[in-house]
Amino acid sequence: MNYDQIMQLALERGFYFPSCEVYVDAQAGFWEYGPSGVSLKNKFVELWRRELVRRDRMMEIDGSQIMSQSVFVASGHLSSFADPIVTCQKCKSIFRADKLITEITSMVVPESADLSEFDKIILEKNIVCPRCKGRFDNAHKFNMMFKVDIGPESESAYLRPETCQSIFVDFPRLYKTMRGKLPIGIAQIGKSFRNEISPRQSLLRLREFYQAEIEVFCNPNKLDNLEKFSEVENTELRIMVGENIKTMTCKQSLDSGVLPNKLVTYYLGLLTEFYQKTGIDVTKSRLRKLGDKEKAFYASVAFDFEVETSTGWLELVACNYRSDYDLKSHANVSKEKFEVLDDDVKVLPHVFELSMGIDRSLYTILEHSFQDDKKNDRIVLSLKPYLAPVQVGILSLVKKDGLAEKAEEIFLNLRTKYDTFLDHSGAIGRRYRRLDEVGAPFAVTVDHQTLQDGTVTVRERDSMNQERIKISDLDLYLARETSYP
Amino acid sequence: MNYDQIMQLALERGFYFPSCEVYVDAQAGFWEYGPSGVSLKNKFVELWRRELVRRDRMMEIDGSQIMSQSVFVASGHLSSFADPIVTCQKCKSIFRADKLITEITSMVVPESADLSEFDKIILEKNIVCPRCKGRFDNAHKFNMMFKVDIGPESESAYLRPETCQSIFVDFPRLYKTMRGKLPIGIAQIGKSFRNEISPRQSLLRLREFYQAEIEVFCNPNKLDNLEKFSEVENTELRIMVGENIKTMTCKQSLDSGVLPNKLVTYYLGLLTEFYQKTGIDVTKSRLRKLGDKEKAFYASVAFDFEVETSTGWLELVACNYRSDYDLKSHANVSKEKFEVLDDDVKVLPHVFELSMGIDRSLYTILEHSFQDDKKNDRIVLSLKPYLAPVQVGILSLVKKDGLAEKAEEIFLNLRTKYDTFLDHSGAIGRRYRRLDEVGAPFAVTVDHQTLQDGTVTVRERDSMNQERIKISDLDLYLARETSYP
Repeated sequence: MNYDQIMQLALERGFYFPSCEVYVDAQAGFWEYGPSGVSLKNKFVELWRRELVRRDRMMEIDGSQIMSQSVFVASGHLSSFADPIVTCQKCKSIFRADKLITEITSMVVPESADLSEFDKIILEKNIVCPRCKGRFDNAHKFNMMFKVDIGPESESAYLRPETCQSIFVDFPRLYKTMRGKLPIGIAQIGKSFRNEISPRQSLLRLREFYQAEIEVFCNPNKLDNLEKFSEVENTELRIMVGENIKTMTCKQSLDSGVLPNKLVTYYLGLLTEFYQKTGIDVTKSRLRKLGDKEKAFYASVAFDFEVETSTGWLELVACNYRSDYDLKSHANVSKEKFEVLDDDVKVLPHVFELSMGIDRSLYTILEHSFQDDKKNDRIVLSLKPYLAPVQVGILSLVKKDGLAEKAEEIFLNLRTKYDTFLDHSGAIGRRYRRLDEVGAPFAVTVDHQTLQDGTVTVRERDSMNQERIKISDLDLYLARETSYP
Repeated sequence: MNYDQIMQLALERGFYFPSCEVYVDAQAGFWEYGPSGVSLKNKFVELWRRELVRRDRMMEIDGSQIMSQSVFVASGHLSSFADPIVTCQKCKSIFRADKLITEITSMVVPESADLSEFDKIILEKNIVCPRCKGRFDNAHKFNMMFKVDIGPESESAYLRPETCQSIFVDFPRLYKTMRGKLPIGIAQIGKSFRNEISPRQSLLRLREFYQAEIEVFCNPNKLDNLEKFSEVENTELRIMVGENIKTMTCKQSLDSGVLPNKLVTYYLGLLTEFYQKTGIDVTKSRLRKLGDKEKAFYASVAFDFEVETSTGWLELVACNYRSDYDLKSHANVSKEKFEVLDDDVKVLPHVFELSMGIDRSLYTILEHSFQDDKKNDRIVLSLKPYLAPVQVGILSLVKKDGLAEKAEEIFLNLRTKYDTFLDHSGAIGRRYRRLDEVGAPFAVTVDHQTLQDGTVTVRERDSMNQERIKISDLDLYLARETSYP
């Protein structure tokens, strides 16, 4: 299963494709979800909502993507969310300074190094433009936020680089009006925007992308005071300990000190249970504690939930203990109160976050579900039935003899409730294979027997087994077989 | 029911509130959905998907919000999507020229008039700044698109001012890979962005807003060749004929020539059926044909679906017959082919669109559902059970005697499947009223009898009737009562 096979399937079967592709000025890093992709994404989000938001009684919000400048003064993005870049004096090509140096000299310079450090190395190592051999200008910082001007007075605002900032800014109102009690999770699904210098690999590094972020507000003195921990104590996690991945239950991870407290462990447990249900191969996943140089500037402890794909290990979720960094910063800049009462004691909550990349998660689901079934000369996407873009195909064995009309009639009864695909044209085998490629778990075929006894065949995607079912039982059958776990 | 009551409810019960409100540089025209608003919106979108997208076998896509400059060269937005504005030389206040003239002189000047026309009237009528009596600079055009610069080279792109442009640009690929056949609807839900000079009234005029757009691609020679028209022929529409609203079936509207063809009539029928199911009071709705001066620049025939609210008649859906304006423009600028084969004849499809404002629709649902039930001293949101943000409240009559634990147990069984609110604190009457205000159709109360016979009371929101139901029957009861129609 490699990246190129998934790419081809995505393009041919309507999962995703480049944005504005008919135009020469189409920009890299922008992709569209086609019909199959939208359907898969919607179902993934619904699973996330069930297994994380509803299960844990979180609040979900949906905030503006354009946010005021002050938000990013407080968050630190205006000053710190920048990459070091250098420009060729001759051909004007632009490179990320740290990556350029690593590529040419194999030296590793952290992207957060002083700008003078990059200039010094470029001079010392005599690094020139890989395209034209030109000399470079001095390194400077390139902020990765997109700026937008609001109103005829052109006041500065920004497209948010992460969805969580709305959650922090909205926290005082939400906690008060929704009668919050610590610990409380606030969640948001939505677009974020980063002006990446080198977007690449379709859904894996986008300039406009979907995040599903959860910010858990908690009392830092009560991180081990969590009754609901018992729900996950036997849930198995796969954690990097030294160079190896160890499988441990939540309880073992906590007792052995591999994970720092009940709160963090509980949410890593929920997260792992969620991904098990997405159909990602969890034996190819790991939780990895980040070193001090890898962590984001706001994180005091950080774990990445990573999966193995044909492109290497891929970060799907950044799990950051952000301490009181965010609420303190917003309180300072806004002069508003962000403390709350927890059992009558005033506290500025700490934050533990699960910051999930939706696009990368969907890519991984596709790659881990992709089967090149050579024996049967077919490609199969073995998606969980509750995530499949098309849940059932309705086929007439032949178009004539009233079979097409009968198929149409069945379709009309199912169409609003299920994602249904009606298909009359082409050889039946080819129609089955087309359904296999979009991961449709069931194909209902109307044949001559249907007209006599009111039954149809239902073909199951993975086993290719067929059974006869009464038309009147189809709705109940599909409801049961495609329902969420 | 007036706007202010809805606003207060929205703020107090987590439907919506201003974005970045803790900051002084928060910009007008940006709002957030709180937990109740997100839940209502998600359910509204699911109903739209069922009743329009799935029912009519449309394709749904989800495209980038940032799009290349060429897209808006072709669409005409770069040159035409602009308001005329004038700036006071003294205090620098900015006004829309057409509105300023109308306010001061009652003269109506179309916003599309020549800029010199505005200057002439301002001079002739001696119009000065309403704030400081200063003189105005010459009128100029203010483009309402938000510009963003991509990459370190700062290439120009724009936040889309309408979701449909992705649909037009993606049409060739979608039609080909998804084996399209005319007529075919392509739909998209997502954010659009307009740099309004005067955003106002919370969800009613936003700078960042949600659209649900459907573009139906059709063969202009076959607009009356539509078998599925029979599905809606008896559906009643409310259409402005002269100064009056007439109730007519789709068939009557077509036969009498009030509506131009089967295709347009069919989709207006589907749209009306959809809104009936949202709980909007359709006796307060009308379809209004727009005059030549009111229509958007790309529309050859246009109808607005409007509803009566406390703020006056409000446009919820713009239904535009855009002819081949869009595909022709994109074909010209991109040099790509946009024609398709329809029964072996090459045709450049025409487009009929249903452009729905989601935020305004949600506002209207709230206003039309709002009941000030003075007799029972309560506010009730009589939302359809399938749209209610909270579907069921789980309450313990008192916290002690194990009732809270029993309520918790019931909650655990229902929490992933339904939007459930567990509430132990306060007088039971007050807890019922809180649920009424977010439109929760059912409240389950655990009392002492529950511990003896395993039954709970289920209170229905509108009637306030209570019945006893077995705990084991609750799931089935809720599944039936909260399912989509």
